Amino acid sequence: MATVIEMLQWHEARIEKMEREYRRNLINGISGYKGANLIGTCDAEGQNNLAIFSSVMHIGANPAYLGIVMRPITVPRHTYNNIKETQYFTINAIQQHFFGKAHQTSANYPASLSEFNEAGLTPLHSELHPAPYVAESDIRIGLELSEELPVKSNGTIIIIGKVIEIQIAPKLVGPDGFVNLNKADIVAISGLDGYNEVRPLERMAYARPGTPPSALK
Amino acid sequence: MATVIEMLQWHEARIEKMEREYRRNLINGISGYKGANLIGTCDAEGQNNLAIFSSVMHIGANPAYLGIVMRPITVPRHTYNNIKETQYFTINAIQQHFFGKAHQTSANYPASLSEFNEAGLTPLHSELHPAPYVAESDIRIGLELSEELPVKSNGTIIIIGKVIEIQIAPKLVGPDGFVNLNKADIVAISGLDGYNEVRPLERMAYARPGTPPSALK
Repeated sequence: MATVIEMLQWHEARIEKMEREYRRNLINGISGYKGANLIGTCDAEGQNNLAIFSSVMHIGANPAYLGIVMRPITVPRHTYNNIKETQYFTINAIQQHFFGKAHQTSANYPASLSEFNEAGLTPLHSELHPAPYVAESDIRIGLELSEELPVKSNGTIIIIGKVIEIQIAPKLVGPDGFVNLNKADIVAISGLDGYNEVRPLERMAYARPGTPPSALK
Repeated sequence: MATVIEMLQWHEARIEKMEREYRRNLINGISGYKGANLIGTCDAEGQNNLAIFSSVMHIGANPAYLGIVMRPITVPRHTYNNIKETQYFTINAIQQHFFGKAHQTSANYPASLSEFNEAGLTPLHSELHPAPYVAESDIRIGLELSEELPVKSNGTIIIIGKVIEIQIAPKLVGPDGFVNLNKADIVAISGLDGYNEVRPLERMAYARPGTPPSALK
């Protein structure tokens, strides 16, 4: 077991003095693996936008809400502007066979170009809302803007969306609703630019006091 | 490529009518892989608490902020109460060699029992703040409460903490600050109870318009 003596230890003042890029990689990495998703939006004229996000979070299941963290200062705001303008966005899982294309959407394209075209991905439209899905993805979620939470600490914005549509490959959904992400080779992100493959260890049974942890039967 | 015809499609009204457990698994799974962390806190009397969270998110690198999503209605609120009482909490990465113990902290223990003892994990104290770290973890982060964001949509609470200490195994940090999570066998969570191992595919180079995606040299 590692003890504190063997660890690197940094306190606040030392973290503030780190070289900018070093700290960016470090702080983006220490929170662990992150979901890899493409956010699809369009503006009022129907111009599509597609952007990679590693910050999709679960907010609630009933009703179904998901959230994303938006960094208004450091990245182009097309996604944010489009969500405000049209009220809709999509979340599309990134799989191993197109993670390079997904990463390419992070390039700084002008609003007049669609990242779908530039990265080589296919927009797919729903009858329920105007935001484009990614046809290549086996998990596509349509959301309606529910609320916007400004983070006072640093100006970041958290967007909460209500799930209004789910399109998912049948093989990914188990009899109890569990989503087998590994069957679609969905990737995980580490840090700012690390892509990873994921394989299941165990599903664990509901934990109870006095009963040792065990795998789900 | 999967087309829309082959997909399961559910809209909002259908999602609302799903069986509760099925929807819970589904909505917790569709957002992709999640970081696996233990949150350490203590109350004003120094009684330790430890709880597993899959909702740690990156908020900002400079200054360094991380966030967690709290579900005040459906889980015991010891973690939340302790953070409010003492202002401090720790985030500790979950590794393959103790993911079963980490899962056990989700059992519904009374506040008088410490999940450290019950799950067989070791509290470790810092000189900088009162919240306990997990000695078994190779990534330990100490945070001070910065702000609390109530999510109006469903009563969830997002806690934002400022990073005031990092303890990390030296082998995990690359020369550019990139955190090699895989070198510590850090796990990823899928759904509510899925634990997964993760292996690196590529780090991708900074994406630029007109340049095809490529691996970082």
